[in-house]
Amino acid sequence: MHFSEEESQFSLSKSSGYVIPWVLARTTQFRRALVLTLVSVISRQSLFSMEATVSITKSECAELCAGIEGEPYSVSVLKEGYCTAQPDGTFRADGTISLVRGPKTVLVDTGGPWDRELLLSELKERGLSPADVTVVVGTHGHSDHIGNLNLFPRATVIVGCDISEGDRYLPNQLAEGQPYRLDEHVSVIPTPGHTGRDVSVQVKGTSVGTVLIAGDLFECCADEDSWRELSENPEVQEVGRQKALREADVIIPGHGRLFRVHRAPLN
Amino acid sequence: MHFSEEESQFSLSKSSGYVIPWVLARTTQFRRALVLTLVSVISRQSLFSMEATVSITKSECAELCAGIEGEPYSVSVLKEGYCTAQPDGTFRADGTISLVRGPKTVLVDTGGPWDRELLLSELKERGLSPADVTVVVGTHGHSDHIGNLNLFPRATVIVGCDISEGDRYLPNQLAEGQPYRLDEHVSVIPTPGHTGRDVSVQVKGTSVGTVLIAGDLFECCADEDSWRELSENPEVQEVGRQKALREADVIIPGHGRLFRVHRAPLN
Repeated sequence: MHFSEEESQFSLSKSSGYVIPWVLARTTQFRRALVLTLVSVISRQSLFSMEATVSITKSECAELCAGIEGEPYSVSVLKEGYCTAQPDGTFRADGTISLVRGPKTVLVDTGGPWDRELLLSELKERGLSPADVTVVVGTHGHSDHIGNLNLFPRATVIVGCDISEGDRYLPNQLAEGQPYRLDEHVSVIPTPGHTGRDVSVQVKGTSVGTVLIAGDLFECCADEDSWRELSENPEVQEVGRQKALREADVIIPGHGRLFRVHRAPLN
Repeated sequence: MHFSEEESQFSLSKSSGYVIPWVLARTTQFRRALVLTLVSVISRQSLFSMEATVSITKSECAELCAGIEGEPYSVSVLKEGYCTAQPDGTFRADGTISLVRGPKTVLVDTGGPWDRELLLSELKERGLSPADVTVVVGTHGHSDHIGNLNLFPRATVIVGCDISEGDRYLPNQLAEGQPYRLDEHVSVIPTPGHTGRDVSVQVKGTSVGTVLIAGDLFECCADEDSWRELSENPEVQEVGRQKALREADVIIPGHGRLFRVHRAPLN
């Protein structure tokens, strides 16, 4: 196991002390009662935030590359994405392709247009034909993630916040921030920022806990020097990244090796 | 020819009269000379804006569906896109697929994943194999536009603002608002709003003038009741739409019949 490229810390603000006396000095008795109630709520929130202050570290995890077992769903990486700058100013890049197997067979991202044969071969190695894939998710509409959608013309296709069965597009609330549950274990959840309409796939109950197949919400484990410049909306993406780090045990990023998330209380 | 579903009018503001006397009263002689120069420039701009006030109408144009001739580039629609609400709350939708033929062979949008056989057949009817297509443009990364990228693994692939040859991604300025010229007649131009990174393909010098293959910058000729709710950023998209209506003679929209743009001076 390769440890700790990065560390994040969360601590909600604990000081509201300067505002409250000013407010109290200018309120009637009725308003004072209301303000005191608010002070009580703020204090409890501060206590909560102190309890919730947590250290988060990430570590790449080579031993999980062979696959993550689980009941009812297992997760495996068919192709690990990459992004490497070239001397001539170009980048060589491809998106991670992942497979979720269980009651449904869910392919998450399909790689670039050049990955057709590799993808067919990887499925075949696992005893699958394209027709066995019931749901295809493109985490976002970049060419290194959605290059092979036509291998699965009869699957439910989810690209960003659009869900379709053939040319029939289904109403959903992904763009309004609501998850789309495939069943009680697997959900498509909105994680915008890299583009306006990214989604991730969350798989609960695996042998390593909750797995998040995150597209380019994370470029790789140690992406602090790169993800912002690739983001259409870094502020929104940062919120999604922090939420993912609070909730997922393993994250599969769009352009690098999967990594574990370690949470430990501070103090 | 079916006429005039919609009309737009442009008129730049002509009044700067309230600010200038206030400035003059507070300037030295040197500054006054500078301000008078500015007044002269503003007056000329006003004159220009009066001349530029123009009535714009759009009309669907069935007789161009068979193809638009041109030298060196012709343009044809391989599949006309559509978007129709269904009684069960779903939508049936597909994106327009267009072909630009000349020194380069440029396919603009590839339809949904279910369009593979149709696309191959349409190319074959025109004596083309997928290998003859030198450039594939996905106007944006929605599944009804980029479903068949893997038919063209050796083409230059442009999806939104990403330009790739195989897994090699080329630096470009599309996301910064700069066109990407394929040659002196054909350019990929940024037209964001529907998503954060839409592009259109502009073809100059056809028999009907400048053709803009616009993706979902326009849903169809008469889309004023629909395009905004499908847009991630209507304000930005509106600017692109107005620019397109000032510059293009024929527009091929993402989900409807191509239409002509008629410009006539007002007054």
